[in-house]
Amino acid sequence: MDLSYIPIAENTIPDRIQTLDIYHVHHSRMTAKQKRSLGPAPLLYPEPALLIATYDANGKPNAMTAAWAGICASDPVSLMVAIQPPRHTHDALLTRKGFTVCVPSEKQVAETDYFGMASGKKYDKFAACGFTAIKAEHVDAPYIAECPVILECSLSNHQRIGTHTVIIAEILDVKADEDCLDASGSFPDIEKVLPIIFDCGSKNYFGIGKKIGKGWSIGKSLMSKK
Amino acid sequence: MDLSYIPIAENTIPDRIQTLDIYHVHHSRMTAKQKRSLGPAPLLYPEPALLIATYDANGKPNAMTAAWAGICASDPVSLMVAIQPPRHTHDALLTRKGFTVCVPSEKQVAETDYFGMASGKKYDKFAACGFTAIKAEHVDAPYIAECPVILECSLSNHQRIGTHTVIIAEILDVKADEDCLDASGSFPDIEKVLPIIFDCGSKNYFGIGKKIGKGWSIGKSLMSKK
Repeated sequence: MDLSYIPIAENTIPDRIQTLDIYHVHHSRMTAKQKRSLGPAPLLYPEPALLIATYDANGKPNAMTAAWAGICASDPVSLMVAIQPPRHTHDALLTRKGFTVCVPSEKQVAETDYFGMASGKKYDKFAACGFTAIKAEHVDAPYIAECPVILECSLSNHQRIGTHTVIIAEILDVKADEDCLDASGSFPDIEKVLPIIFDCGSKNYFGIGKKIGKGWSIGKSLMSKK
Repeated sequence: MDLSYIPIAENTIPDRIQTLDIYHVHHSRMTAKQKRSLGPAPLLYPEPALLIATYDANGKPNAMTAAWAGICASDPVSLMVAIQPPRHTHDALLTRKGFTVCVPSEKQVAETDYFGMASGKKYDKFAACGFTAIKAEHVDAPYIAECPVILECSLSNHQRIGTHTVIIAEILDVKADEDCLDASGSFPDIEKVLPIIFDCGSKNYFGIGKKIGKGWSIGKSLMSKK
């Protein structure tokens, strides 16, 4: 029996959404609850807390905290990061056409927060944190040696979207601490990296939790359903 | 004493990185460890596990799992999501010029995995999961009523980056389950939403962990340092 597109009984959905078109309701393990409209807001779950490192016009290593970033292609391997023009990192990145994405670990949460508050125009943030700036191998940018995972990124293109410049860059290399690698040695073990989650609502930082499922596996049982 | 730019003693850094330029090493609470170069790879920590929902050419609600997404502007509130052209969602999204980003909760990890494996060309994924498709208020797309947070997105522009189409869209509204809101009622409480983290290395899913710091606060002590 094809249960698709059967209108549901009116009394199973709260008043607020009864007026909307409802296409599928059947066998649900979960309840469709009443939703509140919050308006346009930059709320995505989860977001990363990353450090974007550049050399400024004077050659000083600098970095800023960024939560607005994501991978955007697998070949050429590329990522997106959004940066506001007034940030010291903005012009440095566009001038040098290179930067690194440094993935901080839980133990670096104070430094990660600081890199988002202090401006490189005024502070030597690497010095304040006791961080080691190492020149990247493939791009004109430093990386933070203390961060467990580093992405060396070369600017591909950029476009202005309102308040932000959306940077698209090619990832020329990933570097990771030897002791953070998976047993295969081919990628970082997330439970050794212990990356930081930024909660865009409360503005708090969280660690990662427990493994809840294996990809391309836990959903297989649903493949037999029509 | 300004400790910036003082070359470090050679024996404090492993052989592998001695040949690189090192600008700052002092007072570090953390050790700069030996790094392994892994080559270009789409590895970012953490990544989200999101469901991108659209109506296809026949008006059938469909969704796909996406980890490659991020907020990219605060005004107009916008986000980026990268989608491969062969995906059923790709043409639906570009034709309808609208989609929703549905944030699944931990308890929906099997469904989240399934939405990444099955194609909407062959399967009715909403039906298989018992998910409720509700027409979005502001865009020509459905949302998954069972997901705790929904972003209604309107296509702004798109560009091809190698393997993927990079979609930039304006977030016209965020909807969240009433019982997932923070006490203030103005944004979702991440500990009630319980979003899913995708580990791009191991391809496993993780939950969020403990709060490790308060933003614009835990890093304040470093502001007094030069």
